Amino acid sequence: MEVIEKTYVHGYGSRENARLQDQADALAELLHSDTAFPAGSRVLEAGCGTGAQTVTLAQRSPGASFTSIDISGDFLAEAGRKAKAAGLRNVQFRQADIFQLDFGPESFDHVFVCFVLEHLSRPAEALCILKRLLKPGGTMTVIEGDHGSATFHPDSFAARRAIQCQVELQKRAGGNALIGRELYPLLKRVGFDPVSVSPRMVYADSSRPRLVEGFTKNTFTAMIKGIRGAALAAGLIDDDVFDKGIEDLVRTAGPDGVFCYTFFKAFAGSGRIRGG
Amino acid sequence: MEVIEKTYVHGYGSRENARLQDQADALAELLHSDTAFPAGSRVLEAGCGTGAQTVTLAQRSPGASFTSIDISGDFLAEAGRKAKAAGLRNVQFRQADIFQLDFGPESFDHVFVCFVLEHLSRPAEALCILKRLLKPGGTMTVIEGDHGSATFHPDSFAARRAIQCQVELQKRAGGNALIGRELYPLLKRVGFDPVSVSPRMVYADSSRPRLVEGFTKNTFTAMIKGIRGAALAAGLIDDDVFDKGIEDLVRTAGPDGVFCYTFFKAFAGSGRIRGG
Repeated sequence: MEVIEKTYVHGYGSRENARLQDQADALAELLHSDTAFPAGSRVLEAGCGTGAQTVTLAQRSPGASFTSIDISGDFLAEAGRKAKAAGLRNVQFRQADIFQLDFGPESFDHVFVCFVLEHLSRPAEALCILKRLLKPGGTMTVIEGDHGSATFHPDSFAARRAIQCQVELQKRAGGNALIGRELYPLLKRVGFDPVSVSPRMVYADSSRPRLVEGFTKNTFTAMIKGIRGAALAAGLIDDDVFDKGIEDLVRTAGPDGVFCYTFFKAFAGSGRIRGG
Repeated sequence: MEVIEKTYVHGYGSRENARLQDQADALAELLHSDTAFPAGSRVLEAGCGTGAQTVTLAQRSPGASFTSIDISGDFLAEAGRKAKAAGLRNVQFRQADIFQLDFGPESFDHVFVCFVLEHLSRPAEALCILKRLLKPGGTMTVIEGDHGSATFHPDSFAARRAIQCQVELQKRAGGNALIGRELYPLLKRVGFDPVSVSPRMVYADSSRPRLVEGFTKNTFTAMIKGIRGAALAAGLIDDDVFDKGIEDLVRTAGPDGVFCYTFFKAFAGSGRIRGG
């Protein structure tokens, strides 16, 4: 996996881990309620990170056996601790790079990828590689966010500029913070068939305090806050505009605020029929 | 109803009517599948326009009796024709201004408002007026779009600029093309309780050709196309940028394009309990 480790790209550091776990808890239902793998099936989780999704996945499909890989040994150690704490017995962790895998072709019934493609400079190539690991009739599940989908009240030019800094930094690191909207053409282009994408919007107003706290504040606003130093160092924005942007994002978590963000989830077939 | 009649604000002209009908067909399920009024209940549809929603509403609640009002006599005539063609017997049409209604207090069990608040300079006042028409225990349903929610692939600066012209023109006409995201605080502020808002995203990729045709092309892109003259006349954008924006929006309806747009639907209680 080609996650490029930069201090300003989310996903690294222990405060970041706590943030990702918050997000995982608040979003598990929205993102994973329709994912369950049959008993006996072999599932590859490519890019498991600190295991934020692994526990949910493995608990929801107790009869499936998971192989969860990540390029980061530190992340895997944390993922292993989480799996142990949850009493999981159906997950094996392995340190591996998506672009240099040694699994044989057709090793898995399902491949699961969540919040990974956004970090890759060659997401189509990664999907090609993963596709070859699928048995005929196998399926791929991909979940990615899209920072351009952030919509909020009160609207704020400064907040939109601050978010744009994150998009730009992720782009400079080789990634794509707007990849969610692109999943359908991306999967089709490399031969997945059929492909079905559904948007999963997090909608948080003050009638949903758990989402306001867990997502608007502790996930999205915290992530944008976290790139302040890098955005200023890169000369992408003035500090007063950035700070106003954060203030305005915090305001969207207030009693009369609203925050929306859309994840995209794709189910894709390997393009080859079982027995074909 | 305070719809301000300008050539550049959508909703007027016969080509516009056809466009709105296209939209209504493609979106009826997404927007209205969870709206049904009990037999015997009295429902006010405030701002029915050309009846694009009226037929769907009245057919889904055959036992309810609807009073559908609009400020435009021409629109009502068209709405009446649609209702007759559909064989509806449970709808009465009346020409009326939301800000000058002569219904007595507590005249209705439900009020339904769809694509109306976006045109009003005083949406909170309109909601106050409509709230007084509700019986104790009565409910309000509001559906509005939000042009700031438009998200597409390939992304395009020019397309975003062209959309921004529509937002600006609607603002200058006294309206708010971003009102969808604001429904929760707006309804709470004037005393509706409880209020529950759910986003309804139109997601159109090439696996959904009906939505691509009916929504991406014939609804959204057609609407933006329709403001070309007004946007240029107002000096909001250069013609080459606008035309590139339209070209790029058309491109999102192509084989590898994706277009997303979010409507927001609110269910709100009158704040007074039946028998209270």
